[in-house]
Parts: sequence; structure tokens; C-alpha cells
Amino acid sequence: MADLSTCRPLTRDSVMEAHKIVAPHVHRTPIMTSRTLSRMASQARTEDELQGTRFEGRVPARPRIRLWFKCENLQRVGAFKVRGAFHAVQRLTEEDDWLANGGRERGVVTHSSGNHAQALALAAKEHGIKAHIVMPAVSLPPKIAATRGYGAQIVFSGSTSSEREAAAAKVVAETGARLVPPYDHPDIMLGQGTMGIELQEQVEEAKSKVDDGDGGKGGDRPETKFGSASKGLDAIMTPCGGGGMLSGVALSCEGTGIRVFGAEPTYEGADDGKRGYYAGERVRYVSTMTVADGLRTPVGVHPWKVIYERRLVSGMYSVTEDEIMAAMRLLLERCKMVVEPSACVPLAVVLFDEEFRAMVEKEAGSDGWDLGLVLSGGNVNLEAMGAMFRAKSVNSQPMASLFGAMS
Amino acid sequence: MADLSTCRPLTRDSVMEAHKIVAPHVHRTPIMTSRTLSRMASQARTEDELQGTRFEGRVPARPRIRLWFKCENLQRVGAFKVRGAFHAVQRLTEEDDWLANGGRERGVVTHSSGNHAQALALAAKEHGIKAHIVMPAVSLPPKIAATRGYGAQIVFSGSTSSEREAAAAKVVAETGARLVPPYDHPDIMLGQGTMGIELQEQVEEAKSKVDDGDGGKGGDRPETKFGSASKGLDAIMTPCGGGGMLSGVALSCEGTGIRVFGAEPTYEGADDGKRGYYAGERVRYVSTMTVADGLRTPVGVHPWKVIYERRLVSGMYSVTEDEIMAAMRLLLERCKMVVEPSACVPLAVVLFDEEFRAMVEKEAGSDGWDLGLVLSGGNVNLEAMGAMFRAKSVNSQPMASLFGAMS
Repeated sequence: MADLSTCRPLTRDSVMEAHKIVAPHVHRTPIMTSRTLSRMASQARTEDELQGTRFEGRVPARPRIRLWFKCENLQRVGAFKVRGAFHAVQRLTEEDDWLANGGRERGVVTHSSGNHAQALALAAKEHGIKAHIVMPAVSLPPKIAATRGYGAQIVFSGSTSSEREAAAAKVVAETGARLVPPYDHPDIMLGQGTMGIELQEQVEEAKSKVDDGDGGKGGDRPETKFGSASKGLDAIMTPCGGGGMLSGVALSCEGTGIRVFGAEPTYEGADDGKRGYYAGERVRYVSTMTVADGLRTPVGVHPWKVIYERRLVSGMYSVTEDEIMAAMRLLLERCKMVVEPSACVPLAVVLFDEEFRAMVEKEAGSDGWDLGLVLSGGNVNLEAMGAMFRAKSVNSQPMASLFGAMS
Repeated sequence: MADLSTCRPLTRDSVMEAHKIVAPHVHRTPIMTSRTLSRMASQARTEDELQGTRFEGRVPARPRIRLWFKCENLQRVGAFKVRGAFHAVQRLTEEDDWLANGGRERGVVTHSSGNHAQALALAAKEHGIKAHIVMPAVSLPPKIAATRGYGAQIVFSGSTSSEREAAAAKVVAETGARLVPPYDHPDIMLGQGTMGIELQEQVEEAKSKVDDGDGGKGGDRPETKFGSASKGLDAIMTPCGGGGMLSGVALSCEGTGIRVFGAEPTYEGADDGKRGYYAGERVRYVSTMTVADGLRTPVGVHPWKVIYERRLVSGMYSVTEDEIMAAMRLLLERCKMVVEPSACVPLAVVLFDEEFRAMVEKEAGSDGWDLGLVLSGGNVNLEAMGAMFRAKSVNSQPMASLFGAMS
């Protein structure tokens, strides 16, 4: 990883610069709209629906929301993580003497069994650099095969984070490889932020065209009946695990007037970002088995500075496991999009978190908001997904009347 | 249903006319390409892979194939069936005296628990016409709710086709409603064929632009290294159940030089179209529980005339259940597309049927083919999907080495 002292400053300009670096290597993923989901987001819940939830007794909010999804599930390796990985690797090769000192052969190393592992393996491969990936020996065979498929050297370790860190440290000691962490580094944050630049551009472009077409047909098209076509997004919400994506997107919006929000699971304290944000102190340790497995980590030191200290994130929200699964079901069944649970957390906030919904109603008024949501990844294990939905009732509680809003 | 004597002739021009009728009501669904899948389709299987299959001992074929998917899973109600339904209902309203004789109030009727039921309910609703849908009483509650959500009157029946037909006949007798069958009628065939017109136009348009962009990045983009950008598709393959879509698409290609093929499951005789095609006689009865539940019906009388008697379909192919599931896994995992099993049958033929692959190698030569595949629908029950994949090994046999072709 590039030495901190040589990193670009954490600004929107640096995100734009990062975008030039990663654009030749990553997909400009499409944006998607869904008339059905925008309609659902803009429909007040009933008081009955709020009964038995944490919002029981509240007057249901009536926000007006037009949703724009950034489809990073269609990104290379199936997740946004390639943005940060390509940016970090490129910056590393620009570091004084790194290449001259045999950097390609020494390579890079990380410990991850998730999307970052494959992202780094791919970025290293395309830069002709060796990659060592520390994975728990119990990882699923297809994940191991996929990472190896990108030409990475797999180093097996125990499953705890201290065992994994120890294995990575051993690789560093033995090979001189450079550690590329999954989120807690400015180069990673700037790389992830590039999706924010694209999303802003894509929505502006789409809104400038939106008055053509659609006509009377009832399917999934953006609602054009309210809101101004002359401006782009009002806000963006991303999932928040370690905070690399959230802080990067926040940087991409600095000075634009676009507000940025973070979305987390509530389960077993996975809402560390939200708790820290409102308590004024970063939560350093989290242990959760939330279904949103990409969001089990605490917010890192560098992302925290952007999210909280610089106040570039305007609010943090969290939702239950059932709400996440209900959002995932909608994206699968209605939008025919394969998404991983972590990617569904922002939509769950939009549909089910009355605090968020009341805030939008108040801030956006009758114009409503154009709200961008990042579908961060689509890597689900089909067997695991089957098991997730097998136990659930089709009309599980968060969904009860939303089905009425669809067509 | 419009009286047969008043139907338009079964020609490409009639499909074009049908397209004008349905276009305001249905989505012009997007087309999708996948570099990964085109690469897999263009890679020869190994002799080892063919061992234990019906192709054991053959020299593996080496076709060159660029795939273009028509995403009817993103169509309204989640399947192509709305095309035929909107066309049939519109034609009905144009029939002499039908409206004047209280047609709107008498309505339309069909028996289906699948996509045609919802499609007809929607088309009727948007034309202000009453719809009666006969569904087996054992249908899944969400299917019943969805159909009712389109404003249709649900009539419950037994599960056998004779019980369902009897219930529909009773509705006709009691209400004067007109029966709209799911596939065996010229108006339905012409309506389904409209996807073929769109697919031809969309591929031509995309190919005329395809030399821009892409650059060096390795993700899912069309291969541009071979083939001529000046022409559109060489061939289209659709799933074949009752044959409404296959015959309609065949009509849409008549005189264009684009060849059309049908794809079926082999399981329990579901390949009735293929068997009939090569035996020279329509198979009238099929009883199969293939996982491709949209393809359990025999080819209808009217589709048969187009498919076989007029030879507008150039060949029929069939694949095993495992091959269908392997194709479905690829579309879910690699393309992040939710598709129903029936929609995956053409891709399974392209990847796994050596007869088809050898034919393409021979016919297309080194230029290869631009081949359109119809992803006919995306309505899967998540619980059922979970169960489908739960039992399967990740490296199930048809997939063995294809994973090596991906990145």
C-alpha cells in the first residue's frame, strides 16, 4: 500500500483523479430505476404495519422519493471493491523505488475471504504483480477457486482475525509483499469514491432525457411527475461496513450539495457507525453475524475522519435483518437483480426506517428527492441464498402491505 | 379471442403490425451481452467433459458464438407473455360487435397459474375489460395475490388440465367471456413475435456502435474481434413449450436470412417439439415435470404449422435438467440476472449440446455467429429456487471445466 505521506489529499478532486486511473480497468456500471420501488418508497406505511416495530405509534411518514440504483453488482468480480483495489495498486506502482526494488515480484498481500480478495487478485494480475491472499482454510471451495483463478497465491490461515492478520504479517516478513487493507486507507477510499462521480453524471444525463418516452405503460420507469429535471441527485445512500465506500462517495459529493447517508444492519451491534456517529466517538470493535456479511466490520480510522470529523456524511441509519431480507426479495423478485444482502441495506432503510423517511419528508417537501442507492455487490452463494429464504414466510411482516403497491 | 377467420395472416408484416399495437403497453426490454458467456460458448469442451454424457467419444465442437440476450425477464409481469396478451385483447376489441355486445363486461377468461394468467389480467385491466382467471386451488398464495392484484376475478379449480378446462368452459357458459388461450392462437403468436423484431433492431444498432469503447478491460462486453459489424444477427434461439414464442419469432425472421431454433428440456418427453419435428408429426400429448415449468406443454396446432409445416424453424434441440440448472446458475452468478428455469434452456443448448455446437461450427465457420437467446421470464419462487440449488454440488458435472473459462 502506498505510504500514507504520499497519498493524495482526501478531496473531490482526488476522487476525480482516481476515476481517471481506474476507469480503464473497471466497468462504468449502469444505473437502474424502478417505478415499482420508487412508488413503494413514496407510499406511507400504514399504522398497522408499524405495530410491533420500533416505530409503533408514530404517524407514518410521507416522503416522496425517486430511486436511482448504481449497479455495482454488475461490476467486475461482482462488487465495487475493484475500484479501490485498482486505485491502490496503481498508486503503489507510482511510489518511489517500489518497482525498482522488485515490487512486482514481492507483490501485495491481504487477508479476506470476500470481494476484496478477488478484487486485489485481479488488480495485481492486470498490473503484472504477484498477489498473496490469506484466506481461512474453511472458505468455500468456489471462493478459493475464483481467487486462485485470478492467479493469486492462496495462503491458508485460521478463521479468527488475529490468525488471519498473523498469517498476513508472516507473508510480509517472508516476501516483502505490501499489505493492501480492504478499506482503511486513503487510496482505497478515493478508489471507491469513483462510483459516486459516475452516479452523479449518469443521473444528470438520464434526467436530462427523462421527459421523452415512457408514455402510458405501467412498468419500471422513473417517475417523472414531480421533481426538477434540471438538477441531478439530491442525496446518495451507501451501505457502511468499514466505511471505505461511504467515505469515498462522501468525498465525491463534497461541495456539490448532494447529501450522503450511511446504512447499516442493527443486528448484534453492526450499527457501529451509527452509534459512533451519534455518540461522537468511533466504535472500535464489533462482533456480529448479520446476514449482511460485508458489513460486519467496524468503521476504520481514515473513513471515520471523513464520515464524522469532517461531517461529510449527513446521517447514519440502521435496519433489522428481516427488513434487509425483505429488500433483497424485492430486488430479486421485482427487479430481477441478483444482489448480496449487504447491497440491500440502503433500500431497506428507504422502505422501512421511519426516521429516515420522516427526515426526507421534512427536508425534501413536496418536490421529493432523487436518491441514489448503491447496489454494492452481487456475490451470493446460491445454496446459502436458498437457505436464507427457505425459512421465511412469503408475507413476512415488513412486507405485509407493500405488495399492494406493486404492479 | 378474436375469431380465427378475422386474424391477420401469419407473416412478418403482421408481426410488425402487432408490434405497433403492443409497443405502447410493453417494455422494449434491453439486450445484454456477456463476454464471459460468449467466451464459454466459443470454447471447445474437453473429451473428459463429454465422458458419461450422450456425446461421449465425439470430437468436441469448436463453434464461435457471440451471444445476445433479449431480457424478457425484465418485461412487465416478469415475462414475454404480455406481448401476446396485449395483442390478443386489442384484436378482440376490434372484432365486429364484440364491444357493442357488452364485451367489456363479459370479459376474457383463461386457465393458467403461470405468466399468461398475470399477463392477461394486466392486458384486460388496461383495456377496461373484465378478466376471469381459472387457477388450481393449490396455487401458491403470492401467485394468486399477484393475479388478483391486476384486478382479475379468480376462479378456483382442480389441478388437472381437464378440471381446469371444465372450469373455464363453465365461466364461458355463465358469463359469455371469451377464452384467450396461452399460445395456440395466431394473435398470441404474432404478439410474442414482436420481441423478435426488437431483438433484430437492437442487435443491429448495438453492432453498429460496438467498435467504440471496451478498450482493454476484461469484463462482460461483446467480443468484437471477429464477425462483421455490418450485419445483425445470424440466428435466434427461443425456448419452446406450446410454441407461441418460437413460432412468433420465426415469423419475425421470415425473409431476413436469420435462422431460428427451438430449445426444449429432454426430461420425461418434454422434447415433444424436437421429436415431432424430426418424426414429421406433431406430438399431441406430454406429461413431464421438468424443472422448466413453462415448457411442459406440447406444441400447439397453430405454432406447429409455422415451426414445422412452413419450415420457419431450422432445428430443434434439447438438454438435460442438470444442464438447464447449470445454465441458470451461470445467469444468476455471472450475469446477476434472475431468470426462471425455462428461460435458461437455450443457453444450456449453446453450452452443452454438441449437436447444436457442431452444427454452428459447420454452418458459421471461422466468422462465427451472432446468436440471440431469449431470456423469456424471471418469475421464480425464491423458496423453490433455494431448494433447487440446495441439493446440487457446486461443481456439478456439466460445469466441470467451464469455470476455467471465466474471469
